[in-house]
Amino acid sequence: MLLEPDRLFPVEPSSRSLARALYESIADLPIVSPHGHCDPSWFAKNERFPNPADLFVIPDHYVFRMLVSQGVPMADLGVPRVDGGETEKDPHKIWSLFAKYFYLLRGTPSSLWLEHSFQEVFGFDEPLTENSAQAYYDHIDAKLATPEFLPRALFDSFGIEALATTEGALDDLKWHKMIKDSGWSGNVITTYRPDTVVDPDAAGFADNVRAFCELTGEDPNDWEGYLNAHRKRRAFFKSMGATASDHGHPSAVTADLPKPEAAGLFAKVMSGDFTAQEAEQFRGQMLTEMARMSLDDGLVLQIHPGSRRNHSDPVAAQFGRDKGFDIPGRTDYVAALKPMLDAVGMEPNLTIILFTLDETSYSRELAPLAGAYPALRLGPPWWFFDSYEGIKRFREQATETAGFYNTVGFNDDTRAFCSIPARHDVARRSDCAYLATLVGTGRLRESEAFEVAHDLTYRLVKEAYRL
Amino acid sequence: MLLEPDRLFPVEPSSRSLARALYESIADLPIVSPHGHCDPSWFAKNERFPNPADLFVIPDHYVFRMLVSQGVPMADLGVPRVDGGETEKDPHKIWSLFAKYFYLLRGTPSSLWLEHSFQEVFGFDEPLTENSAQAYYDHIDAKLATPEFLPRALFDSFGIEALATTEGALDDLKWHKMIKDSGWSGNVITTYRPDTVVDPDAAGFADNVRAFCELTGEDPNDWEGYLNAHRKRRAFFKSMGATASDHGHPSAVTADLPKPEAAGLFAKVMSGDFTAQEAEQFRGQMLTEMARMSLDDGLVLQIHPGSRRNHSDPVAAQFGRDKGFDIPGRTDYVAALKPMLDAVGMEPNLTIILFTLDETSYSRELAPLAGAYPALRLGPPWWFFDSYEGIKRFREQATETAGFYNTVGFNDDTRAFCSIPARHDVARRSDCAYLATLVGTGRLRESEAFEVAHDLTYRLVKEAYRL
Amino acid sequence: MLLEPDRLFPVEPSSRSLARALYESIADLPIVSPHGHCDPSWFAKNERFPNPADLFVIPDHYVFRMLVSQGVPMADLGVPRVDGGETEKDPHKIWSLFAKYFYLLRGTPSSLWLEHSFQEVFGFDEPLTENSAQAYYDHIDAKLATPEFLPRALFDSFGIEALATTEGALDDLKWHKMIKDSGWSGNVITTYRPDTVVDPDAAGFADNVRAFCELTGEDPNDWEGYLNAHRKRRAFFKSMGATASDHGHPSAVTADLPKPEAAGLFAKVMSGDFTAQEAEQFRGQMLTEMARMSLDDGLVLQIHPGSRRNHSDPVAAQFGRDKGFDIPGRTDYVAALKPMLDAVGMEPNLTIILFTLDETSYSRELAPLAGAYPALRLGPPWWFFDSYEGIKRFREQATETAGFYNTVGFNDDTRAFCSIPARHDVARRSDCAYLATLVGTGRLRESEAFEVAHDLTYRLVKEAYRL
Repeated sequence: MLLEPDRLFPVEPSSRSLARALYESIADLPIVSPHGHCDPSWFAKNERFPNPADLFVIPDHYVFRMLVSQGVPMADLGVPRVDGGETEKDPHKIWSLFAKYFYLLRGTPSSLWLEHSFQEVFGFDEPLTENSAQAYYDHIDAKLATPEFLPRALFDSFGIEALATTEGALDDLKWHKMIKDSGWSGNVITTYRPDTVVDPDAAGFADNVRAFCELTGEDPNDWEGYLNAHRKRRAFFKSMGATASDHGHPSAVTADLPKPEAAGLFAKVMSGDFTAQEAEQFRGQMLTEMARMSLDDGLVLQIHPGSRRNHSDPVAAQFGRDKGFDIPGRTDYVAALKPMLDAVGMEPNLTIILFTLDETSYSRELAPLAGAYPALRLGPPWWFFDSYEGIKRFREQATETAGFYNTVGFNDDTRAFCSIPARHDVARRSDCAYLATLVGTGRLRESEAFEVAHDLTYRLVKEAYRL
Repeated sequence: MLLEPDRLFPVEPSSRSLARALYESIADLPIVSPHGHCDPSWFAKNERFPNPADLFVIPDHYVFRMLVSQGVPMADLGVPRVDGGETEKDPHKIWSLFAKYFYLLRGTPSSLWLEHSFQEVFGFDEPLTENSAQAYYDHIDAKLATPEFLPRALFDSFGIEALATTEGALDDLKWHKMIKDSGWSGNVITTYRPDTVVDPDAAGFADNVRAFCELTGEDPNDWEGYLNAHRKRRAFFKSMGATASDHGHPSAVTADLPKPEAAGLFAKVMSGDFTAQEAEQFRGQMLTEMARMSLDDGLVLQIHPGSRRNHSDPVAAQFGRDKGFDIPGRTDYVAALKPMLDAVGMEPNLTIILFTLDETSYSRELAPLAGAYPALRLGPPWWFFDSYEGIKRFREQATETAGFYNTVGFNDDTRAFCSIPARHDVARRSDCAYLATLVGTGRLRESEAFEVAHDLTYRLVKEAYRL
Repeated sequence: MLLEPDRLFPVEPSSRSLARALYESIADLPIVSPHGHCDPSWFAKNERFPNPADLFVIPDHYVFRMLVSQGVPMADLGVPRVDGGETEKDPHKIWSLFAKYFYLLRGTPSSLWLEHSFQEVFGFDEPLTENSAQAYYDHIDAKLATPEFLPRALFDSFGIEALATTEGALDDLKWHKMIKDSGWSGNVITTYRPDTVVDPDAAGFADNVRAFCELTGEDPNDWEGYLNAHRKRRAFFKSMGATASDHGHPSAVTADLPKPEAAGLFAKVMSGDFTAQEAEQFRGQMLTEMARMSLDDGLVLQIHPGSRRNHSDPVAAQFGRDKGFDIPGRTDYVAALKPMLDAVGMEPNLTIILFTLDETSYSRELAPLAGAYPALRLGPPWWFFDSYEGIKRFREQATETAGFYNTVGFNDDTRAFCSIPARHDVARRSDCAYLATLVGTGRLRESEAFEVAHDLTYRLVKEAYRL
């Protein structure tokens, strides 16, 4: 066995036993994955995953960052370069490096997720080491060649009830269309992610906006035309199953300018001649605009602020976007969200889901805000905080002020397909551990804990994301 | 039973048993409540509380915020409006909504506090639900009609040795006078809270100051006259039992300007023509002035910084001050307090009690400051942090640097009268749980733990607040 | 017994038992102390420590700050004054005050460290109190007169394999030379700490730089000359055993200016006519310069940012540098370190060790940075955070993202010689407690935990500091 059956439960026997009972009551519930980055072409084409390195190493930034941090060159791990430089092509060599340095992941959630996949998806019961690397590779590779390991088959065997992917505002959603047309029963939906046409600092912003308006027959020189283009694309995404939009911004700043000012700001950022503060304000204005559109079309608004993208200039130059070390930074919510919340925060039919990479905001800002405004809900711990300790801190710091019912269940937020059941399992166990501790210290009744466990696993995510 | 007898104690049996023993040694000590917001007219008039909704729902912002956050209109909960709009008047309807949504408070301290009142004050042993709502209402209402549930009788039965309320600088303290004149033995004292005559951003500031100076026969156009007015009002409050002043400021900024500059700043803020920074500086100057007055008259100085008041413009417009969603924000202490501490920080006979809504300051700023300056003490976890996890974080993060003896026991800080024994009980249990953990891990001797438990519950608050 | 044999281990019996086994496997490993502030003259001269107060009270800022915070005048504790005022000279009186107020340290790491010294070094088994003060004094004083308690003998009996002290860039390192020439086998090395010639805000900065350049035969009016002076002094320190430099800066700001700009900035700060921001930028530039020199000479670069030195003007005026209440402050790393990391962060042969006094940076900034850049490692919890809870928070907040292998073992960072074994013992126990909890919750295999325990205690510090 790679995994302890009672992992993540409290060690004290009576709490452990209750945590196990809570977990058993929800372990088999379907997976609802309302936010993630799987590639829809997997399910559209349903071709086999090419090899173990492509499945487990190359796309997993948790894995390659840890190896790089200890001196393994990123190119040796097969991460594609954008500068034309050489990168390792042999999946055996990549796998072998991964196996050699697998011990670096000790104590991280990645080791739990990977061993969950190894044991539960591929049936391993011995650890991955340099010695077992070859056998691991061969076994996984052989499995990937079988029908049971094609994307759709895995989707079904993972027990996924719904899976949302994320596409840019200019995407034609052809894979989603192909999935819908295929007759396959899997519920794979898209999410509207308009960052490239909303963020004046995005590469090619003005060109993106012109293409965006052309696509929708709107005037790119007109603020109302631009907003209409969003309305039309949102409608198109909704027709492909989207129930939410998602916004990755450097900060949580929002704005609610009078229309003429907003129109003037739009003209400014389109001209290319704008300050950093104007870019910030435009992004902020667009969050409020998106919230207003949500009131009309019912899409849920997700805000993911606080990542400092591409921290390393040399790495970004060699490996491109999303590979250049995105690092969290301090994020303020209280003053930042006020303009949007003054505009729409009291709307009972609007759902805005806030995420954070700054855990200091849980108890000081996010829980008090979500514990007051009807439109706000708290997203689950995100990215580096999607972990046992991260979930524990979230629950301990948010629950006493926001309760359970201003949270929205779990997001796996992953592009590592096989980790989906692993991540949901870690979240379910971590929540059950927390609930068992509440019961053990007299803060919740046992009967309530079973109900809350079900809510956190299934009901809240379905309701919040309107799935 | 609504409450577990061993609630909040560690789950491991040997630690639990020690925590229980520690708790039993201090559970019956009198309640000393040196900071709160009870209405002194309750004890002056000693009239019955009107109904269960008025007692438990309408004045409790923890309760109504949580229900509002899930879409219940604030007016339906009977919260009074300032804009002339309709608000629910029928206490039965309000109670019924409260009962229906009581489950939203799961995992919050409010559920512990309320069930403590239900069980210990009113004798319930079944949970409040939609089904039991009517029976709950009738039983509480009947009890409230009996002599044993009049304010003074409850005060006595709660075992309150001293209770401080908070009054503005212009208050005539007539209720306090009436209490004193009544011959009742209850020790209800006031606290000097001069925010409306100290904060240039307060509504009607200059008029307030003029009224304040008229009341004391001082010249409102003269800085020394204004300071004298404070001295006189402090003396008056002291004559009504006050041992402390209290200051709710947006930040912890202090200043110590030369007299001519301070006088000039006073003239500026009185003129109404001042910047946000000048207002900040004036508030900061006044903290240092208050500290100097404390050196003379012995009042303890409490600083409550960091709340962003009335976050929601629309809610504040409808429901007014204190109802408009006050939200914590990041608060810096190190540079902010330097001017005041350079002036008076080394005074051994001065007591300044610092509070925070920014838990990140416990270990980084507040404990190092209080662990050095003789004049500083740390107030207990405040507001959203007055909870099991909040107290745990406070002790874990502050004790290793500030020790126990730079803290001042517990504040309930409440306007919900029946929650007073509940809150003190939660604090006592949480502290005993922490102490038992220290003993269990060899960081404190058992004999010391009993002494510290008594100190934290009774001795430190009496000494710090000079009660 | 003053100390519980199972102190700091988890209370749950199975975890406790594993923590004990882990601890026993590493308890007797040699102490490697790569960063601290012991006085090298102790080992050069090998004279007896003068008396108990000089050993335990006067140099220990944790101790005297706590007593001062409760109203004991600093001068009564024998802390030397720089303003010519009186200070207590009688070590018996100082010791007696210390004993009287020793209870103030309850719950702090100092009480654990001191009782460890009392029991393990001096053989006490009864607590220090007012009653036992005289007996304690006499016993310690008598022991200090014996050969077994001379500095070199204690060094050996503590099992210290290597001890680094810290000296300024202008230091002649005569004590280190004397140690080397003495033939004694103890490995006491120096560390290059050039703050007084790097920080334009340091007292006498320009004079310091001139002396520094004179010492090395370089031109103090030339940027390259100034850099060469550093190269030469680094080489000299290296010849006296240094494997690292250390930099105490107010912030973590770095810069990487083009050479002409850097040269211009150097001329500016040397002229004495510069802004606060220019001073900050110069310090930041020097971190990058030091990192580049490290690439050549192999010295490890330590950065200790975030202390607000000499917070109290009056205390600093009376007692001088390092006695004036240094207080931590908020510290940002992400934007601050970018210039240096863009320049050298991907170098696999460079080691930069980051410390923090701002625990909020562990999970949000430091772990993500160290978990990506090959040149970065995380230093252990520093100063107020060198404690059981501090270490626990560090491991819980850093490990999930940075793993174990981007950390560097323990630093005692002390000038209290007898506390060295005590501090390492606390760190070892705290780490074993953490590892046992990981195993108990299925996040690490037991066999891995034994390996990691050894790594955290011995291997990582040797490797990171190149000892």
